[in-house]
Amino acid sequence: MGFRMLTHQTTYRVIYGDTDKMGVAYHANYLRWFEIGRSEMFRSLGLPYKTIEEKGIFMPISEVYCKFLAPARYDDVIVIETTLDPGVKGSMKLDYRILNQSNEQLLVHGYTRLAYMDANGHVTRPPAFLLEFVDKLKNDSA
Amino acid sequence: MGFRMLTHQTTYRVIYGDTDKMGVAYHANYLRWFEIGRSEMFRSLGLPYKTIEEKGIFMPISEVYCKFLAPARYDDVIVIETTLDPGVKGSMKLDYRILNQSNEQLLVHGYTRLAYMDANGHVTRPPAFLLEFVDKLKNDSA
Amino acid sequence: MGFRMLTHQTTYRVIYGDTDKMGVAYHANYLRWFEIGRSEMFRSLGLPYKTIEEKGIFMPISEVYCKFLAPARYDDVIVIETTLDPGVKGSMKLDYRILNQSNEQLLVHGYTRLAYMDANGHVTRPPAFLLEFVDKLKNDSA
Amino acid sequence: MGFRMLTHQTTYRVIYGDTDKMGVAYHANYLRWFEIGRSEMFRSLGLPYKTIEEKGIFMPISEVYCKFLAPARYDDVIVIETTLDPGVKGSMKLDYRILNQSNEQLLVHGYTRLAYMDANGHVTRPPAFLLEFVDKLKNDSA
Repeated sequence: MGFRMLTHQTTYRVIYGDTDKMGVAYHANYLRWFEIGRSEMFRSLGLPYKTIEEKGIFMPISEVYCKFLAPARYDDVIVIETTLDPGVKGSMKLDYRILNQSNEQLLVHGYTRLAYMDANGHVTRPPAFLLEFVDKLKNDSA
Repeated sequence: MGFRMLTHQTTYRVIYGDTDKMGVAYHANYLRWFEIGRSEMFRSLGLPYKTIEEKGIFMPISEVYCKFLAPARYDDVIVIETTLDPGVKGSMKLDYRILNQSNEQLLVHGYTRLAYMDANGHVTRPPAFLLEFVDKLKNDSA
Repeated sequence: MGFRMLTHQTTYRVIYGDTDKMGVAYHANYLRWFEIGRSEMFRSLGLPYKTIEEKGIFMPISEVYCKFLAPARYDDVIVIETTLDPGVKGSMKLDYRILNQSNEQLLVHGYTRLAYMDANGHVTRPPAFLLEFVDKLKNDSA
Repeated sequence: MGFRMLTHQTTYRVIYGDTDKMGVAYHANYLRWFEIGRSEMFRSLGLPYKTIEEKGIFMPISEVYCKFLAPARYDDVIVIETTLDPGVKGSMKLDYRILNQSNEQLLVHGYTRLAYMDANGHVTRPPAFLLEFVDKLKNDSA
């Protein structure tokens, strides 16, 4: 049971341009990889983020937290695991774990909180289609 | 009194490459700007981070937090305010505030925690020269 | 004499996030630094690029060339030298030289060509206010 | 026959962090995508770039050219097509074409030239294992 459907995995291979002179991935890149994670999660659930924007809702990041346990290195394939926290209503909270695919070592964990914004740039309540979407996911995964 | 010397300000102008299709600075860039902030703070205090590395100490990011209140936009000059938290010994904690220079609006606040690592990549205790450096700052600013 | 006024210099300090595991600035960053160069050149000439966009003209990059002679390293201050080529009318061509400020070594040279685009995304002829702007520069520097 | 084996294709999906306020992919990102292209080409040929470095050879970019024909947009899947130019011996020249996967529109074409450098940072002649590698490819594809 649990929340199987609310967790999604995708992969990314670290390029030279992601590394820094310490020989490891520069920390700011994990925020890009969180974006890849949530973007692919939405797509896999049938609601690409692009579609959300086409419905007039924008979801800027309001908060980010990241704990770095071990580095990703050049050419590593990382697993980006994204989990939708279904209990948060006024904003959307997503939890992330980044693992090294080859040995399943946990490298980074963190979260982002996303606000709901209308096309005029005003913070808004979560739209009905998104609340229904999250509710449906909760029921499907219960 | 207070901790005047432990707070430092520098500026940066947002370029096109920093923005995203929402027309504002992409959130991951704030972590780069935090780096500019702490880098210029160290330099202004007479101990450039480059010198720290030359002494065999590397300071990877172990934790990041960021709260986004309002966006920085193209061509905005932002003020990066960095404050060294002198109470943290096992790691180094730095607090940041990003403001819009033109109207002093607070855009983002956050912190980073940095570990101490030796040239072999092992986490290490803070080196004496850094503890003395922080102690001296505390006394100077008391 | 010459085209003194059509050449502009600004500086940038290389951060950790700009470097890669070879210990030098990742090559794609030079395109960001070219942007800083032309942006500050326009500003210094009294016509910030932001103002150009406010007049309804967008200038996307249509072509880029870059020759890498020597690397910029962490914490280096680089000089970004931008020169407007006044002979090009249908598009705007800018030449760049990136130098190490400390020893004046030439690190990179290159150019970008920019198209003129209206607010609907269509390529357009150079607007009168930009042709007059370039003509005035030519005369001032003759 | 031609050079079938010397051309390689891989894909990438444009993220929010790649776009700029014009609503399209920022031009500097194409250089990152060229890197993905050549990296995956080397891997598919059995000689990952990481292995080349492990043999003591580094291949910094010495030259880049890019012609931008049409923009990639958020969430587009782009095809990165990389072709090794087998006629160049003193350095390695790679040609790239970036296409929109959905309609096969050519967006960008360009090339990079890579130097051969030893572990001490000195430019060196192409190592025997790389010359043999390219020769073998030429014969295989003849």
